[in-house]
Amino acid sequence: MEFRMLNASIPNAANQSADAALSLCRDHFQKAMDQLLRQLEWPEPLKAAAYHSVMLGGKRIRPLLVFAGCAMVNEGFLRTESRAWEASVRAALAVELIHCYSLVHDDLPCMDDDDLRRGQPTCHIAFDEATAVLAGDALQSLAFEVLSGETRLSAFSQDSAQESSGEVCAMTVLRQLRSLAKAETAMVAGQVMDVQAETRRVSLEELETMHRHKTGALIRASVEMGLLAGGAVPGQPAYESALRFAEHLGLAFQVQDDVLDVTGTTEMLGKQAGADAHLQKSTYPVLLGLEQAQTLAQELNQQAMSALSEFGDEADLLRAIGMLLMDRQS
Amino acid sequence: MEFRMLNASIPNAANQSADAALSLCRDHFQKAMDQLLRQLEWPEPLKAAAYHSVMLGGKRIRPLLVFAGCAMVNEGFLRTESRAWEASVRAALAVELIHCYSLVHDDLPCMDDDDLRRGQPTCHIAFDEATAVLAGDALQSLAFEVLSGETRLSAFSQDSAQESSGEVCAMTVLRQLRSLAKAETAMVAGQVMDVQAETRRVSLEELETMHRHKTGALIRASVEMGLLAGGAVPGQPAYESALRFAEHLGLAFQVQDDVLDVTGTTEMLGKQAGADAHLQKSTYPVLLGLEQAQTLAQELNQQAMSALSEFGDEADLLRAIGMLLMDRQS
Repeated sequence: MEFRMLNASIPNAANQSADAALSLCRDHFQKAMDQLLRQLEWPEPLKAAAYHSVMLGGKRIRPLLVFAGCAMVNEGFLRTESRAWEASVRAALAVELIHCYSLVHDDLPCMDDDDLRRGQPTCHIAFDEATAVLAGDALQSLAFEVLSGETRLSAFSQDSAQESSGEVCAMTVLRQLRSLAKAETAMVAGQVMDVQAETRRVSLEELETMHRHKTGALIRASVEMGLLAGGAVPGQPAYESALRFAEHLGLAFQVQDDVLDVTGTTEMLGKQAGADAHLQKSTYPVLLGLEQAQTLAQELNQQAMSALSEFGDEADLLRAIGMLLMDRQS
Repeated sequence: MEFRMLNASIPNAANQSADAALSLCRDHFQKAMDQLLRQLEWPEPLKAAAYHSVMLGGKRIRPLLVFAGCAMVNEGFLRTESRAWEASVRAALAVELIHCYSLVHDDLPCMDDDDLRRGQPTCHIAFDEATAVLAGDALQSLAFEVLSGETRLSAFSQDSAQESSGEVCAMTVLRQLRSLAKAETAMVAGQVMDVQAETRRVSLEELETMHRHKTGALIRASVEMGLLAGGAVPGQPAYESALRFAEHLGLAFQVQDDVLDVTGTTEMLGKQAGADAHLQKSTYPVLLGLEQAQTLAQELNQQAMSALSEFGDEADLLRAIGMLLMDRQS
């Protein structure tokens, strides 16, 4: 399917603060995702279930990390229409599709059995269980379609020069695909570890391993795909530092998630508060006590920020995301 | 993880009949898949569930189609250790992983609710439902890991020249990835259509559309990935003819599947015979009558063979698979 280029397909982020730039990126991302899902030629109720599973909410942290990773190594990508911007958008869409599919499956009755997410009925409640299984599967394959360039995005000109310089792009896309696929497998493995940990006490080390797989890997891959989109190469200082940031941030995010489950309310969280305690899961507050868990979250966040200490404003988007995550209440 | 190259990593298929060559390819494939699954560093029971879901049986039609597609355009690929052979093996592994994940999810209680497959307990019966959902998800991401080259295969030398000529390979792999991802999405869409068709009478046209999505797309992609592995380019006569063959064969396969469900026994089929009738599904025998459905299957197979009529022994592996499918009893 062919679409004409949208006007202003990249955010005009020159001279914006990092928060404003992130906000612009999020808006553009939302538009791109909305268009992608609306243009799908899928049978119902699959199409509606996919839309429901992706568009009803979400902070879009992983897409933002993609853009921030790209900005770290590609100063101009938010100012000019560039291959880096398109590559970032594709990666951002792909990682969010993977994230959303995992939530659909996690919510299933045989898994976490959640009726609510982001204040809305979960996919199997809004539709049915079979549709939820299949919607999750389809979102996963769609992620790889989008990332591999199978799906033309309406935000980009049909005259894009990308194909003609295919070779240079192909290696980058392939590296992004490897990063995403590997992270996705780790995420599923982490979910298995999580299910195992639900009914027994695990050690702090096991808990960390589980989180690094279940959520850390995809967070790391988000930054990595952004770095690759921006033209970075493994081994470069910016590349390695950004990934160290991502690894610390991923764990900080999870520790804080555990904390919020204790301190938050159902309304604020948009999901059942106290669910962890109800399941007798091993969590950071359970293993360390609430106060020490809160301290740990702060420390990990500081370690994340320290990983960027040698960098200037190219790392501002990453820092802004770090602060966003630690300030949240849900 | 590093492995030394296995001896005889490609079948010595010089001067073999097509059937013997297919048999050798299947043996090599089985070995490669077995090694892949055994080397996975996955937590239990995920690893065991993955092995169970892939290794307990299966005719490996899709992997064979990959090899046959490659042979169509690359005469030497079965005689010398070549990039085409490794690319074919990766594609073969990937497509079979996708096929197997789809069966795991199809068998779930909320879907077809099958306890038996290939004469063995289905994944959620052998393990549990949550493990089956996650095993399916992990097999899917593993497919993309393998195809994108993230996973090093023990069948290939660690000194493979593939990386140094990365650019040439990258575009091929990217095209294979697009083909697989697109086919997988179509497969899921087809499954949705199938679920919809379970409780109402659909037209022949709708039935064909469903089958072309649910099974035809992946069969077509199998051949396509093989063609790409062999160095073919879209538009070439051999490429287009092989894909036409695949499209006719895919539908022939499905029509015959419907026929076998009526004529076969539980023991022969390895799954519950008469399941379609029990569900009141629209099938070819239901819409056309058994005899006319059997005739249609034969006709479609002939059309498949006709697509290859201008080709010589380079098309023999494809022909052999066509005959294999029409001769089967399960």
